Amino acid sequence: MSTIPVGMTLGELAVRFGCTLKGDPDARVSHVATLEGADSAALTFLANPRYRRFLSQTKAGVVVLEPKFADECKGAALLTSNPYAAYARMAALLHPAPSVPAGVHATAIVAATATVDATASIGPRAVIEDNVVIGPRAVIGAGCVVMRDSHIGADTRLVANVTLCHGVKLGERCVLHPGVVIGADGFGLAPDQGQWIKVPQVGSVSIGNDVEIGANTTVDRGAIEDTLIGDGVKLDNQIQIAHNVQIGAHTVVAGCTGISGSAVIGQRCMIGGMVGIAGHLSICDDVVLTGTSFVSGSIHKPGYYSSGLPIDETSRFRKNVARFHHLDELAREVRRLGRRLETDAHGTDEDPA
Amino acid sequence: MSTIPVGMTLGELAVRFGCTLKGDPDARVSHVATLEGADSAALTFLANPRYRRFLSQTKAGVVVLEPKFADECKGAALLTSNPYAAYARMAALLHPAPSVPAGVHATAIVAATATVDATASIGPRAVIEDNVVIGPRAVIGAGCVVMRDSHIGADTRLVANVTLCHGVKLGERCVLHPGVVIGADGFGLAPDQGQWIKVPQVGSVSIGNDVEIGANTTVDRGAIEDTLIGDGVKLDNQIQIAHNVQIGAHTVVAGCTGISGSAVIGQRCMIGGMVGIAGHLSICDDVVLTGTSFVSGSIHKPGYYSSGLPIDETSRFRKNVARFHHLDELAREVRRLGRRLETDAHGTDEDPA
Amino acid sequence: MSTIPVGMTLGELAVRFGCTLKGDPDARVSHVATLEGADSAALTFLANPRYRRFLSQTKAGVVVLEPKFADECKGAALLTSNPYAAYARMAALLHPAPSVPAGVHATAIVAATATVDATASIGPRAVIEDNVVIGPRAVIGAGCVVMRDSHIGADTRLVANVTLCHGVKLGERCVLHPGVVIGADGFGLAPDQGQWIKVPQVGSVSIGNDVEIGANTTVDRGAIEDTLIGDGVKLDNQIQIAHNVQIGAHTVVAGCTGISGSAVIGQRCMIGGMVGIAGHLSICDDVVLTGTSFVSGSIHKPGYYSSGLPIDETSRFRKNVARFHHLDELAREVRRLGRRLETDAHGTDEDPA
Repeated sequence: MSTIPVGMTLGELAVRFGCTLKGDPDARVSHVATLEGADSAALTFLANPRYRRFLSQTKAGVVVLEPKFADECKGAALLTSNPYAAYARMAALLHPAPSVPAGVHATAIVAATATVDATASIGPRAVIEDNVVIGPRAVIGAGCVVMRDSHIGADTRLVANVTLCHGVKLGERCVLHPGVVIGADGFGLAPDQGQWIKVPQVGSVSIGNDVEIGANTTVDRGAIEDTLIGDGVKLDNQIQIAHNVQIGAHTVVAGCTGISGSAVIGQRCMIGGMVGIAGHLSICDDVVLTGTSFVSGSIHKPGYYSSGLPIDETSRFRKNVARFHHLDELAREVRRLGRRLETDAHGTDEDPA
Repeated sequence: MSTIPVGMTLGELAVRFGCTLKGDPDARVSHVATLEGADSAALTFLANPRYRRFLSQTKAGVVVLEPKFADECKGAALLTSNPYAAYARMAALLHPAPSVPAGVHATAIVAATATVDATASIGPRAVIEDNVVIGPRAVIGAGCVVMRDSHIGADTRLVANVTLCHGVKLGERCVLHPGVVIGADGFGLAPDQGQWIKVPQVGSVSIGNDVEIGANTTVDRGAIEDTLIGDGVKLDNQIQIAHNVQIGAHTVVAGCTGISGSAVIGQRCMIGGMVGIAGHLSICDDVVLTGTSFVSGSIHKPGYYSSGLPIDETSRFRKNVARFHHLDELAREVRRLGRRLETDAHGTDEDPA
Repeated sequence: MSTIPVGMTLGELAVRFGCTLKGDPDARVSHVATLEGADSAALTFLANPRYRRFLSQTKAGVVVLEPKFADECKGAALLTSNPYAAYARMAALLHPAPSVPAGVHATAIVAATATVDATASIGPRAVIEDNVVIGPRAVIGAGCVVMRDSHIGADTRLVANVTLCHGVKLGERCVLHPGVVIGADGFGLAPDQGQWIKVPQVGSVSIGNDVEIGANTTVDRGAIEDTLIGDGVKLDNQIQIAHNVQIGAHTVVAGCTGISGSAVIGQRCMIGGMVGIAGHLSICDDVVLTGTSFVSGSIHKPGYYSSGLPIDETSRFRKNVARFHHLDELAREVRRLGRRLETDAHGTDEDPA
């Protein structure tokens, strides 16, 4: 009785992902690992130069890396100009997600007017309301609630305990992690005689293809028109996207960031963690915002922007803060001193004595 | 067979909401739209002067706006001193929420000791524990968990997947969006020999009438007495309210803000997004905190307060930050220079030569 | 018919918790209260000197406090060097959590391959997937989802609507509050030709004993190896812990804080609220970060660190910010003035006149 070989040969990997192989094409790897933690059946990679020091010591079966580092790697290597992307694709092959059986779980509640593709999977305790449409191979995990009139594209997955409010449109191949809420009412309030009147939020949310949304992130429905998330956008955990925000294609946003109402974000932006973006402004394409930045006005030029003040020892920080609170006065004093020196100098120059 | 006319006539709207009508009272509008996106069956409004440039071009059936802008609007207009509030009320009329049938869904789990009003609606998979009281016309959406001894007032709605821990009290006409958690334990820890002992959180949470709480916002139960949220308070998404916070009536808080334990916030405050408020302090009535402010001490005077540092290009920002970390030294140097100039001057003045 | 006395006698409390009693050992207390709100059946405490002014007026049955304040307390007192820790233990005794019946609720869904200890409790609508192991006396609350291959230690409690993704390991005596998500995919993306490729997250999350995790907090699974949370760590609400973060034993983190990928945090650190910590850095043991700090590099020395800029009146703040954005120029100007004064002085000194 023969055993089925696990994993992939290095030769197969090289051919499939267009890499140059240094080493035995018949050697096999079965799983991924870090440079430090790898054994001889592991595939690993070098992308961040920070970890280059581990290269000469690794016991990995093969390392995916740039050709320029090939000599530093004693074992087998798969050479490519973009090792991180190649690694990502190889890892997906070595560690496929378990297949989910198609069909509706006995404890799911699916409205008679909903249209669920026969190849889709509806998990235990999921609730699918009226007129919802769920596409081929979509997976709705345990405890998800999909409210009336929502559309979910092919191959999209709601992991578990996700809530889609009514009329939300999700594209294809999206992943929404647990605790995500899409389409809750935007924060629309009209002041009236010392109180706040709720402004009905009659828009919805439209999300493109290949979008990933991290755990407990929220995207509010539009006040009148829709909140828009473009194709290929990736949102990390705990992000808040307010009503009528627009995020351009292939923009990525790190955790804990908040984007206020009607902000328009361009394509291919990289927005760091815990960034705050004010409302009713626009950010052009290809802007990078470093972590904890605060954006209070529009950005019209691609580039790197920051305002996160890094830590100092508390005692020293407090002294500097005290000075900061009088910085305008300090600047005026410096100007005054400058003028005085100038006057003194001129006085001396002009002194006829 | 006659058709039932949809929407409302402009005459009905003018009378009902006390506006002055400019235009045909028998014309009808059926839905709301933006100034830009409106068609002839749409009602729209002008409140933010930012959008005034769209006024002359709009195709809307009617625009709700201030009398002073009436001449700029070529079509019909409903004139009022507070167009945003009037719009909010009209939009609620044109876009009513679908009615929810009263009664307990077959898959809901309601404890025998719970008291659910006959006009309330308990959705699929909701869990209602012992001694809970649910008032008239309240709506408990799919997947909500309401733990023992909680009280939910009349006309209050838990949209879906909301968790109320034990003994929480919610007033009337509140709306809690998906993922909200009310009454989880506050973060009470006593240090003891290098470890932390949990301090039992025996208080609860008491929430007034007409409160709205955004998706994934959390309000912790009090350590001993209750955390208190006043009437008409509006909380956006992803907010954290710690144990024993008190928030005065009609205060609004934007997304991602965190309020630490035992902070007491006044009435009618407007707290921006991603604001951090330290514990054990008080903020008086009518305070406005702009986005990403950090409040480390009490505020005793109404007004506008800020500390959100706005972005700059990263390279320039870093240079300024490096200087900030020596700001105290810089200020001392300026003082030294000033004294020196003074001495030199006095030296000159006093110079008997 | 005799009544069963409620609560505890002061004598019992003194003996059990090693306090010195000042007062009647047979007097009883039945519940806890604040110094201000206490009645004669209440136990209260003084730990924060801020509340010392209430000590002379309290009507409490007994006050737990340090011996040095004993004279200021007119009624009974339990004297101890750590009154807050002693109070925490006494409160747990006076206010025990209600017992949860062992067994699986009729509406829970437990996979045939899962191992649930007979003394554990699985609540209504909970979903327990394949190969999950749940230890003695563990409590899985309503609506929780525990995915395949996860392990939950003895006496650990998932309050309600908690999501554990596959393969997560939780220690003993942990508490996870509602909305917590453990083990969602980390935010791993490889750039490739203007798009982002998902990097499979094949690690998991390992959480020690005695860990408490606040409502709506998220801890992501590792990219390759596991995200690690040490024994006795306490996380408040709305915290984001990214993939491959390591948090040392007995570190506490306040609400809304975000910790980026691969950051390594030491033991016994105290991390304030809304702190942002960048990725791929390390923070040594015994570091205190005050609220809204931003950590962009490693910290090698125990101590207090800050960068949260506190508020000022908005008009004044804006003036200072405008100066901040030219701080480098200001510092150069000050140096120029200093050099000029020096030159002038030297010029004068050296002036042979």
